[in-house]
Amino acid sequence: MNRKIDVIEVGPRDGFQNLKEYLPAEKKIEIIESLINCGVKHMQITSFVHPKAIPQMKDAKEVSAVLLPKYPDLDLFALVPNFRGAQNAMNCGFKKVTNVISLSVSHNKANINRTHDESFAELAKILDECSGLEVCLDVATTFGCPFEGKYYDTAPLMAFLKRAYDLGIRTFNLCDTVGLADPAQVRNVVKAVKAGFPDTRVEVHIHDTRGMGLVNTLAAVEAGVDGVQSTLGGLGGCPFAPGASGNTATEDMVLMLNSMGYDTGIDFGMIWEAAKKEHADIADGVFSGHNIFVKDNSAFIK
Amino acid sequence: MNRKIDVIEVGPRDGFQNLKEYLPAEKKIEIIESLINCGVKHMQITSFVHPKAIPQMKDAKEVSAVLLPKYPDLDLFALVPNFRGAQNAMNCGFKKVTNVISLSVSHNKANINRTHDESFAELAKILDECSGLEVCLDVATTFGCPFEGKYYDTAPLMAFLKRAYDLGIRTFNLCDTVGLADPAQVRNVVKAVKAGFPDTRVEVHIHDTRGMGLVNTLAAVEAGVDGVQSTLGGLGGCPFAPGASGNTATEDMVLMLNSMGYDTGIDFGMIWEAAKKEHADIADGVFSGHNIFVKDNSAFIK
Repeated sequence: MNRKIDVIEVGPRDGFQNLKEYLPAEKKIEIIESLINCGVKHMQITSFVHPKAIPQMKDAKEVSAVLLPKYPDLDLFALVPNFRGAQNAMNCGFKKVTNVISLSVSHNKANINRTHDESFAELAKILDECSGLEVCLDVATTFGCPFEGKYYDTAPLMAFLKRAYDLGIRTFNLCDTVGLADPAQVRNVVKAVKAGFPDTRVEVHIHDTRGMGLVNTLAAVEAGVDGVQSTLGGLGGCPFAPGASGNTATEDMVLMLNSMGYDTGIDFGMIWEAAKKEHADIADGVFSGHNIFVKDNSAFIK
Repeated sequence: MNRKIDVIEVGPRDGFQNLKEYLPAEKKIEIIESLINCGVKHMQITSFVHPKAIPQMKDAKEVSAVLLPKYPDLDLFALVPNFRGAQNAMNCGFKKVTNVISLSVSHNKANINRTHDESFAELAKILDECSGLEVCLDVATTFGCPFEGKYYDTAPLMAFLKRAYDLGIRTFNLCDTVGLADPAQVRNVVKAVKAGFPDTRVEVHIHDTRGMGLVNTLAAVEAGVDGVQSTLGGLGGCPFAPGASGNTATEDMVLMLNSMGYDTGIDFGMIWEAAKKEHADIADGVFSGHNIFVKDNSAFIK
């Protein structure tokens, strides 16, 4: 009877890509499988980017070759920055990818060195030429941009989404890329998007930069999103802001949602152990999840 | 037109008392005054406890002697564990104190070595003999206890509050002492207390142990509390759980509430600077606030 919420783990991409030391493919696979064992059914397991740009993702093919055949019923997908990445993902057996375009023109230029016109042309090419591939859109800087500031008007967002919708996109992932959102803004934006595009799937991707990871995630859930992204241990973001700028931690989010009666399909006790094991195994110190630092397990697991 | 929320700073008590190294009285006063300069009007500035129990608070008299005459119009108050503490607070010029009793019988025993009957008898004595002193009640372990677990039934809480109400208490501070609450529980409890005791003032005191500091605080605000407690920098709680178990950080909370349009009366830019200065000045490393680790101040201050 409880409302189902899709928890979408993106740590193997957004978390691992921020680690300073290369994490071997077998270790990546081990962590990914620990998440699968906890009940995670939706996961961004890698990205197809140039290894010079993001060395951590150089093993995309290797990771995919192990996991895709082994878990054909799970929603495992990859991030692709361009048509070439989409082709590579298809060749590795992916049925679903996410492409990224920033709502902010200046951030899009800084992040992928493209104008909006160039990005949408590339997206159109992926959709045209990769038949059979499901393509979702990560809308970076939905809530604000590090160069342009926080966004108070939803009109530019709606026009941006319309452009993607008209190309055929039916899954929007609204990203608070640098952690500028507040709960009122998240509610407002999510409701506007759900009302404007009622036949799309809407997800959010929230960074915990200013401590609002969980409150913004809950705001999105209560405003009607279909899925919420997060990373095991709260990995992600900038390693130069200790404890502060990773994504919302999956295990913290699962504790909150499970406690409130939502059906995440994920066992908190198990994912807590997975997060603590990841923390023990990865020495980079970029963890922002809270529960991994809690020593006492009594008194709160239902 | 915006709803006013009282931000009640408790760092000078709940934060400082957890520091390993003694913070000199003049440094305490400096931080307290930096908060006052930011617009903070409600503050727990010390506690009257035995210096052997909590050495950090041995300067309660000294701190009070400087601040109370200087800021007669502010709501500056002290925590008192017993009648003797209340007498000392009165003698130092306090007009308002908070007494603490745990809803959990086992935690009350562990924390102040009293049964409920003994605690309520002491509270009655304070109320009877300290005429003119406003006495508020901190209800420790309102949402759960480290020994007894999370509380799912509000009936014991309501009976507990009735007992205090009948003695004359009109301000309840509902404390999530070890960080067990979730937003649904906070809404449920706050609404029950507001409905059951409509002529009382209700506050919450939330620890961020599991990352739910802000989400639980917002849940309380939206359920109708009059004030929210927090600590500058997120100090507080157990120093053995790094980054994990302080109180909700005042500056993070102010950013969230101000961004949402609430009237806190506190300037975020100023309190952010105060938090960063406190962080630079105190070497204990027990900070759990997020904004103090954010380097870029562009793009989000309204």
